[in-house]
Amino acid sequence: MRISDLGEFGLIRNIQRLSFRKTSTTLIGIGDDAAALKVSPSKILLATTDMLLEEVHFDLSFTDFYSLGWKSAAVNLSDIAAMGGVPCHCLTALGIPNHITVERIEDFYRGFTALLKTHRTTLVGGDTCHSRKGMVISVTVLGEVEKKNLLSRAGAKPGDRVFVTGTLGDSAAGLEILKNRVKGQEGRGKGTEAKRLIAKHLRPVPRAAEGRAIARSGCASAMIDISDGLSSDLAHICEQSGVGAEIHSDRIPISPALMKLSGGLTMPVLHYALSGGEDYELLFTVPPGKIKRLQSLHIPVTEIGAVKRGKALMLVDDTGRKNTLQATGYDHFRRMKIT
Amino acid sequence: MRISDLGEFGLIRNIQRLSFRKTSTTLIGIGDDAAALKVSPSKILLATTDMLLEEVHFDLSFTDFYSLGWKSAAVNLSDIAAMGGVPCHCLTALGIPNHITVERIEDFYRGFTALLKTHRTTLVGGDTCHSRKGMVISVTVLGEVEKKNLLSRAGAKPGDRVFVTGTLGDSAAGLEILKNRVKGQEGRGKGTEAKRLIAKHLRPVPRAAEGRAIARSGCASAMIDISDGLSSDLAHICEQSGVGAEIHSDRIPISPALMKLSGGLTMPVLHYALSGGEDYELLFTVPPGKIKRLQSLHIPVTEIGAVKRGKALMLVDDTGRKNTLQATGYDHFRRMKIT
Repeated sequence: MRISDLGEFGLIRNIQRLSFRKTSTTLIGIGDDAAALKVSPSKILLATTDMLLEEVHFDLSFTDFYSLGWKSAAVNLSDIAAMGGVPCHCLTALGIPNHITVERIEDFYRGFTALLKTHRTTLVGGDTCHSRKGMVISVTVLGEVEKKNLLSRAGAKPGDRVFVTGTLGDSAAGLEILKNRVKGQEGRGKGTEAKRLIAKHLRPVPRAAEGRAIARSGCASAMIDISDGLSSDLAHICEQSGVGAEIHSDRIPISPALMKLSGGLTMPVLHYALSGGEDYELLFTVPPGKIKRLQSLHIPVTEIGAVKRGKALMLVDDTGRKNTLQATGYDHFRRMKIT
Repeated sequence: MRISDLGEFGLIRNIQRLSFRKTSTTLIGIGDDAAALKVSPSKILLATTDMLLEEVHFDLSFTDFYSLGWKSAAVNLSDIAAMGGVPCHCLTALGIPNHITVERIEDFYRGFTALLKTHRTTLVGGDTCHSRKGMVISVTVLGEVEKKNLLSRAGAKPGDRVFVTGTLGDSAAGLEILKNRVKGQEGRGKGTEAKRLIAKHLRPVPRAAEGRAIARSGCASAMIDISDGLSSDLAHICEQSGVGAEIHSDRIPISPALMKLSGGLTMPVLHYALSGGEDYELLFTVPPGKIKRLQSLHIPVTEIGAVKRGKALMLVDDTGRKNTLQATGYDHFRRMKIT
């Protein structure tokens, strides 16, 4: 069977079925932002790994190595943030093709370290090897969280409200601008707004402080980071919580920069926000009685909908009409065709 | 600068220099078989990552996916064994090209799980993505070790004896037989001995019980697993311990299978044993006063030489003549030319 017929998430379920499980120390295993492992009575170790492959996750024709290092750290730190934890240590495995110079690898580690340093996270090991087939990056980040602050994708209950930090769609729009630049279609890709969207794509800032504050306040029932896209990542929360959800298209936060450049993009703004992915914002659910506690944190969040009974994911448009929300975020093997 | 001019180990030193260090919880960082991190007063967390790339570490024309999964687990479990620890959890990141079927990935996980299960190690997470440029595997294993049993590469003292488990060179000879088979040169690659060498290459068995017994007995002063090759890995111990060493070519343990097939191989047996790599045996040093303790463990070990003052690595041949031992194991960027 071709993997594209099964899809990334079907494949993950098969892997889960084949794996040996020793549950006593594994609080959360395969299928969340990070694994949660009990290492002492009060402390939980978080472990996450993310791979970045040339021509799949990045294109060396428009990504500098400093940004590549930064982003490789960011995507993993974001997973730790989504569990409510604090990152501590990390490991990098790099496959490096012949044509890449020492200077570029050093730039990678400059960008990588710059972000790690602000999170007091240390590089403690890894692997470097020659690659015959393009640049390969695999990063593992270890973190910690107190048992009471651990947040998983499971836990959303009907009636909970759905929140998101920051704005959505900037990263995907930034990527489109970068691709157009390579083709010589500079267009609107020059101004401050374009720079902002591009920066969001190349050097995302993980919502570490926000994730930690949300977890410590105890206001959230479930949390995930938006890496595949709002629709897919909301589907992950719903699937693992055994619930449905309804979100309002006119409440989805769009940045002024994205609004301003929307005319020059190939798709409607909502497409980038729902399916673009790589925003690395946090998506989380809050019981109505705890919304005041969330507001007291003074974090930039937007309420975009509510958790519902059943399994359906619905999108309410600005006329009040409900449509099924297709989880159209990134599936690596189906390529934007998850349903 | 080209990375081949600097070499893999020069590059690692540069990365180490650029990294942010927070030493309070990092007992051992970059440059050992695994990182050692203090997670509680008595317990140390071990973390190691190893990447396997198509056409660099494996060739799909002669590696089945079950073996590939097995080996991906083995090389990481071996690193935990070399620190004296016990593996607990692991994460896998896979980059999968279009032509690889679901069945082959499931076979990968069957082999992977088969070995993990015997070590009571659970797969707790990871990442699966599409690869445009060949199969990519990155595995991270987490383990534990008591502080008093932690063994690093540093710690060898002049006068200590150098020991190795099992036999050396089988894996590299097995690889040569596999390569010849692909070329249609079956030759001596059919018999029981050939199968044994091939098995050692495709499905190495990490010396987990042996590493643990050596560590718990307290007899060893330094330990490493042989992945790059005896000469390189001995050089790693010597460099990090600030010592030299002298080993005897006629004491290096060679398997009966390798001896029997030696006539049909392109290089002398000693070459495979010194530079072949991927044996995943343990190389360790023992002070003379603790050799009886080692012997009482009833582990298959061979004394091959002694630690010396200075920096020189010497090979004593069977006539008693001493020659400088070139560290000719695998350097990913210099390709067998480390000096």
